[in-house]
Amino acid sequence: MNYQELIDDAVDAARTHLGHGRVADYIPALACADPNAIGMALATVDGEVFQAGDADRPFSIQSISKLFTLALVLAEGGDALWRRVGREPSGNPFNSLVQLETEHGIPRNPFINAGAIVVTDRLLGLTGDAAEHVRRFLRSESENPNLATNAAIAASEAEHGHRNAALAHFIASHGNLDNDVDAVLAQYYEHCAIEASCRDLALAGRFLARHGVRADGERLLSRSEAKQINAVLLTCGTYDAAGEFAYRVGLPGKSGVGGGVLAIMPGRGAVCAWSPALDPAGNSVAAVAALDAFTTASGLSVF
Amino acid sequence: MNYQELIDDAVDAARTHLGHGRVADYIPALACADPNAIGMALATVDGEVFQAGDADRPFSIQSISKLFTLALVLAEGGDALWRRVGREPSGNPFNSLVQLETEHGIPRNPFINAGAIVVTDRLLGLTGDAAEHVRRFLRSESENPNLATNAAIAASEAEHGHRNAALAHFIASHGNLDNDVDAVLAQYYEHCAIEASCRDLALAGRFLARHGVRADGERLLSRSEAKQINAVLLTCGTYDAAGEFAYRVGLPGKSGVGGGVLAIMPGRGAVCAWSPALDPAGNSVAAVAALDAFTTASGLSVF
Amino acid sequence: MNYQELIDDAVDAARTHLGHGRVADYIPALACADPNAIGMALATVDGEVFQAGDADRPFSIQSISKLFTLALVLAEGGDALWRRVGREPSGNPFNSLVQLETEHGIPRNPFINAGAIVVTDRLLGLTGDAAEHVRRFLRSESENPNLATNAAIAASEAEHGHRNAALAHFIASHGNLDNDVDAVLAQYYEHCAIEASCRDLALAGRFLARHGVRADGERLLSRSEAKQINAVLLTCGTYDAAGEFAYRVGLPGKSGVGGGVLAIMPGRGAVCAWSPALDPAGNSVAAVAALDAFTTASGLSVF
Amino acid sequence: MNYQELIDDAVDAARTHLGHGRVADYIPALACADPNAIGMALATVDGEVFQAGDADRPFSIQSISKLFTLALVLAEGGDALWRRVGREPSGNPFNSLVQLETEHGIPRNPFINAGAIVVTDRLLGLTGDAAEHVRRFLRSESENPNLATNAAIAASEAEHGHRNAALAHFIASHGNLDNDVDAVLAQYYEHCAIEASCRDLALAGRFLARHGVRADGERLLSRSEAKQINAVLLTCGTYDAAGEFAYRVGLPGKSGVGGGVLAIMPGRGAVCAWSPALDPAGNSVAAVAALDAFTTASGLSVF
Repeated sequence: MNYQELIDDAVDAARTHLGHGRVADYIPALACADPNAIGMALATVDGEVFQAGDADRPFSIQSISKLFTLALVLAEGGDALWRRVGREPSGNPFNSLVQLETEHGIPRNPFINAGAIVVTDRLLGLTGDAAEHVRRFLRSESENPNLATNAAIAASEAEHGHRNAALAHFIASHGNLDNDVDAVLAQYYEHCAIEASCRDLALAGRFLARHGVRADGERLLSRSEAKQINAVLLTCGTYDAAGEFAYRVGLPGKSGVGGGVLAIMPGRGAVCAWSPALDPAGNSVAAVAALDAFTTASGLSVF
Repeated sequence: MNYQELIDDAVDAARTHLGHGRVADYIPALACADPNAIGMALATVDGEVFQAGDADRPFSIQSISKLFTLALVLAEGGDALWRRVGREPSGNPFNSLVQLETEHGIPRNPFINAGAIVVTDRLLGLTGDAAEHVRRFLRSESENPNLATNAAIAASEAEHGHRNAALAHFIASHGNLDNDVDAVLAQYYEHCAIEASCRDLALAGRFLARHGVRADGERLLSRSEAKQINAVLLTCGTYDAAGEFAYRVGLPGKSGVGGGVLAIMPGRGAVCAWSPALDPAGNSVAAVAALDAFTTASGLSVF
Repeated sequence: MNYQELIDDAVDAARTHLGHGRVADYIPALACADPNAIGMALATVDGEVFQAGDADRPFSIQSISKLFTLALVLAEGGDALWRRVGREPSGNPFNSLVQLETEHGIPRNPFINAGAIVVTDRLLGLTGDAAEHVRRFLRSESENPNLATNAAIAASEAEHGHRNAALAHFIASHGNLDNDVDAVLAQYYEHCAIEASCRDLALAGRFLARHGVRADGERLLSRSEAKQINAVLLTCGTYDAAGEFAYRVGLPGKSGVGGGVLAIMPGRGAVCAWSPALDPAGNSVAAVAALDAFTTASGLSVF
Repeated sequence: MNYQELIDDAVDAARTHLGHGRVADYIPALACADPNAIGMALATVDGEVFQAGDADRPFSIQSISKLFTLALVLAEGGDALWRRVGREPSGNPFNSLVQLETEHGIPRNPFINAGAIVVTDRLLGLTGDAAEHVRRFLRSESENPNLATNAAIAASEAEHGHRNAALAHFIASHGNLDNDVDAVLAQYYEHCAIEASCRDLALAGRFLARHGVRADGERLLSRSEAKQINAVLLTCGTYDAAGEFAYRVGLPGKSGVGGGVLAIMPGRGAVCAWSPALDPAGNSVAAVAALDAFTTASGLSVF
């Protein structure tokens, strides 16, 4: 595989989609992202990195952090998490309260906001500082010691976070939060507001392609746990458009409203694309287009 | 890979699950299935077949037929189908009317009952006889000329089919059926009541492992269409437990309340397991256990 | 009370609303109703009748028939009905399937379509001919022997009745229909397609103002049953706008998409207004305005 | 009418229901209410008071306070409230989030918790202290200067109030709260935790029977506004059992989980019954039975 050529071509193909979609504007700090930025990076299981476009430019990782909180909880606390959060697609917009009500405060999966709040609560309980654990993991895997949370974005999220507060209180009313609601939300906003580049995230996602083994050779997750995260990514990782993403890209992946999408090629590597403008489901128009072009040309879909 | 040993071991492992779950009993003809039957067959892309247990015993394929109606509609009519049915997980029990109402008669995906009724309507419109088209395809791929519909089961389904009739009339009220409601339902019951063995289905499913190419070398679907069906199978193929199936088995698959589960190994082959007793989600307890054992031992999950 | 002056004034006030709203057009036979027609009639418990406007012109009574089927079922079969249908407002559009699903085929109340189908099934079971029973009752109370079903409208309803067929099959799937689905629907369309005038309906509704006693002095319902029907009318009689109707008019009432609204003044009489153009909730704009003007001027609201 | 005899008999009849139902126990302070207490008081429009049983014993008025916050908001701010809260029955348990989501943060009516939070927010905005305004009104109408909030209950409600916090944040996320979430909730808990007796509440409810005129002859609400509150009480005042209450009692009424029920007899007076044990819908078993017996014997239902 000529990965460099593949991602160069993918970024070129995706550039034609720039100008479509809308940058997330529910908080001012995200609204000023450059809609014409586009980057892509691929890290192989052996540590090679290929980049195209704005692959070194940091962006707000937002919901992509949910992949890492989930992995860290499974690493620290094991299967007990699955009594508190499900593994099924939600079939509803990502911030829906309806299913949470009918299913008694057990979120459908760890990648909708409600589920990620429970995962954050668990990581906070296991470690005492959920966001710092995520940052430390990302810095280590990406070898980027400067990777950090943008405090202004975290504060802005908290200020505009009535819907997440509603979710957290609702979950708490069902007895499914161990820590104080405000403490959990603070941690949640802090890990969502981490800034990282495509390169950072491709490197950090490699452990899922390596069946649970970190860059330094240490095993974070069992082979079975890594496979399970990939399965949940494929069925639930891209909001209400998981079917569409599986259909077009055919890889386990996680998107964020900052415009990033991190996808896993089991046994091969991880690939991250980024461009800020989003489709109505909340996924980056050009980043998904880049990944689509990449798997179509390479045949590297899992299907 | 020693496929024979792998499926022998998988069936042995799954036998420990016999006695759990319940045979579908909503119609008498299904209720009398033998709960201790278990079979498994694997057909490689090259045409080799491996079998274990009751792999030659025909059973009611039920919803597994939805995989074939979808493939035949895409082959005959192309992408136009996707304006009438979605590709997202439903996040609800397979016979739910709720989403159909909020989404104006467009079923969430082709594998819930509502979606399969629309697919059947389309196949009927394209060919004039949907069930006969499915039978002909299955006979040809499996080289089993005796494969047929069990008319008693089809009649019994129709008699107890108020819920499907409700779905069909509801879809029709939104203008999303071309043919007469009763004619579509008759075809639907007829293809669900086809009887086939694990061997038959593993052979018939190979075209999806062969990226769209039939046993005789003829292309039924484009590479992209075959990939797309695999993606929809993975996210939506096992009722409300698609996440669980992806998590445990990690292959695109389609189950039926007759107890069969057909799974696709892209590029390698198709594997079918069968045992009549079902879990609460409607999937065979022992067949899923057999597939779980198989992918765990072989590492052949797509993740 | 000078009833004649009150209803003359009410009709005059309501005429200013002509031109607003839309005539029901889901079937051709209803779509041709005259949007400028308006009539009102009041019948006292003592048998006096006051009329204004087009009070003698017959119109399609549609859902107003549900009031009479309910009364006749309670008269014939008593309280057993309430095991099969509830008495609570639905809080959802009148033809919703959602609550029916979550509440296992027990419709919320007898005035949503689903509930009226169950009531019709019960009346059919008790009498052998539900629609003929309604017609006979209406003819007798109104002393109008010509009152009849419009067969063309009944046939047209049946032809466009996929949604009601979906409801009926869904109810049947929960075991809550005694008779054949098609037979029940035929009776349902037949009593909905009865044509009567404001005068006919005001006279026919008097038994509820007379606490259950018919025009000829015979008791149809106990005092308690009559009170109960009035209560269900007030909370559920005008589709999803029962609160609005109670708030504006303040009388128990039942509306139909033919544009009629029949309201009960307990202890005093019944008043019916009619004008074909409907608001988005399915209630006649001008008929509700006429009743609003009438209760505001007369102070005859129950509140 | 011999009111004294009627309420004596009603309380006697209701005593047979003591021992049924469950005292609210979601907070400790409510759980210790005496399940065998029962009281009833009736205040006529002319100021006569009749009492039976524990009619002078104060209890936690809870949701009955919603009647008074609504009246005070309409008195201070008029119709503008109805842009922020609806007037239709909810058809769902009183604390449901579902409708709030589908209807974009506009609660269905002022008597479900979500609606009462919006009303409290409005009263806080109009007056600067919502709970004090309610207390002052109740003290004045009941001539009971000792009437006060139980601070321990208010604190306990706040502590166990995750579900109300979820509702308030959700409403705020839709821009339908003017004041700070915590400030609104504090006021809400404070007026719910007011303690008053049946006598106090019957006297305080008289203004609705007097078409808006207070005890001192001052007009609080227009005749039309008073009628409107009565209409909303009848259709929405008793949680998910408004139809049942209308059917059995036939008066506009408001219940609270402290076991009180206040009902209005337009033009005649107000009657309050109390007994702590609740039915599954949250209404007092014995208090509703007492009101049922009272209207059945007196014929004073509005129907």
